[in-house]
Amino acid sequence: MAYANGYYCNLKETYLFTEIANRVNTYVAAHPEKKIIRLGIGDVTLPLAPVVIEVLHKAVDEMGVKETFRGYGPEQGYDFLRQAIANYYAQRGVDLSLDEIFVSDGAKSDCGNIGDIFADTNVMLIQDPVYPVYLDTNIMRGRKVIYMNATPENNFAPMPDKKVKADIIYLCSPSNPTGSVYTKEQLAKWVEYALENNAIILYDSAYEAFIDGEEIPHSIFSVPDAKKCAIEFNSFSKIAGFTGTRCGYVVVPKNLERQTENGKVMNLNSMWLRRQTTKFNGVPYIVQRAAEASLSKDGLQQCWENIAYYKENARIMMKGFDECGIKYYGGVHSPYLWIQCPGGMKSWDFFDELLAKANVVGTPGSGFGVNGEGFLRLTSFGSRENTIEAMERIVAVFKK
Amino acid sequence: MAYANGYYCNLKETYLFTEIANRVNTYVAAHPEKKIIRLGIGDVTLPLAPVVIEVLHKAVDEMGVKETFRGYGPEQGYDFLRQAIANYYAQRGVDLSLDEIFVSDGAKSDCGNIGDIFADTNVMLIQDPVYPVYLDTNIMRGRKVIYMNATPENNFAPMPDKKVKADIIYLCSPSNPTGSVYTKEQLAKWVEYALENNAIILYDSAYEAFIDGEEIPHSIFSVPDAKKCAIEFNSFSKIAGFTGTRCGYVVVPKNLERQTENGKVMNLNSMWLRRQTTKFNGVPYIVQRAAEASLSKDGLQQCWENIAYYKENARIMMKGFDECGIKYYGGVHSPYLWIQCPGGMKSWDFFDELLAKANVVGTPGSGFGVNGEGFLRLTSFGSRENTIEAMERIVAVFKK
Repeated sequence: MAYANGYYCNLKETYLFTEIANRVNTYVAAHPEKKIIRLGIGDVTLPLAPVVIEVLHKAVDEMGVKETFRGYGPEQGYDFLRQAIANYYAQRGVDLSLDEIFVSDGAKSDCGNIGDIFADTNVMLIQDPVYPVYLDTNIMRGRKVIYMNATPENNFAPMPDKKVKADIIYLCSPSNPTGSVYTKEQLAKWVEYALENNAIILYDSAYEAFIDGEEIPHSIFSVPDAKKCAIEFNSFSKIAGFTGTRCGYVVVPKNLERQTENGKVMNLNSMWLRRQTTKFNGVPYIVQRAAEASLSKDGLQQCWENIAYYKENARIMMKGFDECGIKYYGGVHSPYLWIQCPGGMKSWDFFDELLAKANVVGTPGSGFGVNGEGFLRLTSFGSRENTIEAMERIVAVFKK
Repeated sequence: MAYANGYYCNLKETYLFTEIANRVNTYVAAHPEKKIIRLGIGDVTLPLAPVVIEVLHKAVDEMGVKETFRGYGPEQGYDFLRQAIANYYAQRGVDLSLDEIFVSDGAKSDCGNIGDIFADTNVMLIQDPVYPVYLDTNIMRGRKVIYMNATPENNFAPMPDKKVKADIIYLCSPSNPTGSVYTKEQLAKWVEYALENNAIILYDSAYEAFIDGEEIPHSIFSVPDAKKCAIEFNSFSKIAGFTGTRCGYVVVPKNLERQTENGKVMNLNSMWLRRQTTKFNGVPYIVQRAAEASLSKDGLQQCWENIAYYKENARIMMKGFDECGIKYYGGVHSPYLWIQCPGGMKSWDFFDELLAKANVVGTPGSGFGVNGEGFLRLTSFGSRENTIEAMERIVAVFKK
């Protein structure tokens, strides 16, 4: 008798994006003449950089010729890409060896799959509001999940509480959905907490390319001793627009160790290598070449131009909300604006008002957790034209 | 205190391919003038089909232009590819709806990840010898694994034993590593066993494109009622040479249900959808277009030509071993020849002799399980030239 995994019963059905689609469709059916602008989705819209396209064509040609054809590659990624990633980190003073880098099909897969190497008895600490993957993947394994509040009072960047005993902590900076960031000093406090508790920090830096200036760290490994307690996830989705091209990576420090419940000391880098070689077969060769190209000098320049475009969108949005006197968070080091619904409105009420009066679609903050109630997530990933038009409408409606 | 997953301690270190590399390197160092031919590895060598290359270029161009750029796609795959897969199955009389098909980065990932939707208390039944992924991924979750013997006596295609109570059964046909196949009647017996025991069959058909003639089924869903007890894995790796391009798929029948240990009835199709949307972000758009192209009329014709090439290699190998009077299995519906080591030699002894006397590298059967002892796996994926030369050497050495 095969039994299904009963922990799936504990998952909440996520009606968020279905419900958004339903409300938008209902509105459009009643008002077919209106032009709807969607600013709620965390997906890029600019095409891949010219250098990346050029290299993709070249790699495709290699796959069509026997002499240069590539079959199975190393599960942990080709050296050429791991070297490019190591160089990218080195530019910011973080030293990684190639065998600390594991190339993957994206940070979402990694954030979920990393749970494979940990015992199911660990207590997981996540923020509220949160990227739902951290929560759901652990519920699926029956793990206990506890929360820390991300609120305006702590700038949506909660700090460790010595009274709370957590085994594994997810941090995301810049954060999805709030756009908040941790400073180096704050991350040092988290590293201190993790070392004191023998905990592990799972650090999601998928949005690091949006960080402005020198103050905010791009990697938790900027903090001394983080290699003793942290695993980092990063992705080409946001830096290089790879949301539909699929490439990410995990950094697992070489000497990172933890015990099993029976007291056996395990090397987590070796465990992740074993996990990947057993349950994964690597990323397409052509995609790895594309990712490498995005980190080249020309590639990075073209990627930064795209990011500058999104950041200018964010500035236009912030200016508009400033004019309306509507408070928001994020938007500076992040493609996300976390809007405080005006007049104490609830998330879905503001969603409906924005849809009806400005024909703009956002994502209700309540979909990301209890503390998301009263907020709405917007993104700067729209086109310039749509972003300007959306903000003109919003200002026309909400400016007092 | 973060604890590591202690079940990893139960994994056997797999020295197989490391040990092969060591022995080959040692031999080459002592005999630098010898030309080594590797016939042990299950990786394709022919380039991607021209139609696939053409479509890849076109899809890459789409990614470089804003109007046709694709970001996040559906986690379960684009409809265009799922429709192409449904059509491919329909040609053989198997009717699939699109929401039964889940596109993935490959059968290896799927065979491992499928375990997520089942309780850890299930007893898994696998063959010996076996593709190690079935074993290791379940050891990682602490599941009990029991074996059925695949031996010359049962043509390496063991049948159900009513006395054995298994909850989940892995079947692979054509089999890696033995090249054995199940007939429709045999699969019907397995379906009968599964239905009687409320078990689930995980059916790996990654090598189905090598099946000759009409007698051997390409899919377990050729068997009536299999949709009530089976999940099938397939891949573009072998049919279209996608080992380095990465695309596969899982078929989970729409109405397939099993209970949790608490008696709650769960739909496994919905569970897998939930698993994939939570822990996966889809396959690159360009790769999905390439996979679609490989199943087009021209694509399939070009793919069959490549498979015919490998099958001709297999015929050359079988002829050579026939001349030597060395017994083998597989080779007909499969790229694998499962060689019975002559003179009762052990796997590693025959490996050494083949390396030293014919300079040919195989894979010792003992690496796939206890019953693999005394066998050696060879593949027909080499070049024609190398295959001919390897067999000439083998015949020269072993012909009596």
